[in-house]
Amino acid sequence: MKSVKYEYSEEDMFPNKSPALLKHNPVHKKVPVLIHNGKPIMESNVILEYIDETWKDNLILPRDPYERAMARFWAKFLDEKVIILILKLMHANSLESCTSIGAEREKAHEEARQLLSTLEGELKGKKFFGGETVGFVNLMVDFVEYWVRVIQEAVGANVLTEGEFPLLCKWAEEFQNCLVIKENLPPKDKFLAFFKVQAEMITSFYKEKA
Amino acid sequence: MKSVKYEYSEEDMFPNKSPALLKHNPVHKKVPVLIHNGKPIMESNVILEYIDETWKDNLILPRDPYERAMARFWAKFLDEKVIILILKLMHANSLESCTSIGAEREKAHEEARQLLSTLEGELKGKKFFGGETVGFVNLMVDFVEYWVRVIQEAVGANVLTEGEFPLLCKWAEEFQNCLVIKENLPPKDKFLAFFKVQAEMITSFYKEKA
Repeated sequence: MKSVKYEYSEEDMFPNKSPALLKHNPVHKKVPVLIHNGKPIMESNVILEYIDETWKDNLILPRDPYERAMARFWAKFLDEKVIILILKLMHANSLESCTSIGAEREKAHEEARQLLSTLEGELKGKKFFGGETVGFVNLMVDFVEYWVRVIQEAVGANVLTEGEFPLLCKWAEEFQNCLVIKENLPPKDKFLAFFKVQAEMITSFYKEKA
Repeated sequence: MKSVKYEYSEEDMFPNKSPALLKHNPVHKKVPVLIHNGKPIMESNVILEYIDETWKDNLILPRDPYERAMARFWAKFLDEKVIILILKLMHANSLESCTSIGAEREKAHEEARQLLSTLEGELKGKKFFGGETVGFVNLMVDFVEYWVRVIQEAVGANVLTEGEFPLLCKWAEEFQNCLVIKENLPPKDKFLAFFKVQAEMITSFYKEKA
């Protein structure tokens, strides 16, 4: 979006993290890390704010302080809620496939539905989250939507449907058709394979326990 | 810090949240909420950024983009780690006082020690977090330090000591002596009473289970 040249370096997170990752993000040992002028910046939202403050073309955050606050609020909401939800969905599905406990699955699906409803409500009358152009929340949300779909496929759940969440699904389509996004989405087959392995690991954990 | 007049309104969170809170923060139903020009802003870090962008005197965040990124990184670290740690400390203490399970307590204390060590390391050669003046991280950390102390007192744990964390303790003292902070800290006795009740509730939960 900023037309800035960068070098992308893939990190192999399992089983061993690279010395470069441990050096640049010793506190969390997580990706993503942006290195600029030799100095590391960590956490997706912090990286986006840094990019926006360093390269001023095509602003990611809105200019108005209140709209900026709303963008940060929604980005935080997604950042905090979604990974937990995905883990819950994966565990609930594994649990159900190994034991007769069905209530956990229903509970996780209901939680997912509530989170998606909140997002669906936020999209009423808007083309993208936070307005008419691709911005901060969209960049955070996109991966969410993409993750949820890929994981649904990997574990076999079916929560995010067009019937129930028409605005979210329409937005996801429009967003993914933006050229800059299209060119930079992670490859779906690799993503899917990764989560299939994760789901299998969780399932064998519950099988042993059962 | 901004010399802006404001009206402070206390929220009674238990047992019933006020209609004003539910109206202004329907997503999380949490405090704090800042209302400016009739519009609500939620989440501590989002509120601080909004205040800094709206009133430009005495900047809370540093001017340099990299220093801003570091301030946001540490603020997020604290925001995400500390409440969970406090809850763990409270549960571990209650669990130990009701049953013979001592390992949980030792584990929670060790986790607390690690988190405090990370903060202690960050303070080497600095008067405040992120530099020489009270800023973003300090405003987020202060409540952390204050919370941990008050909760230690309420549950009887002893993790944050001067012997082990001299820099953190010295910083806490200097910070709390700043006039603007001194005048705005929540009353310690009220805070302490609140957490004593919480600790008692957790203890009676474990007693019933034991």
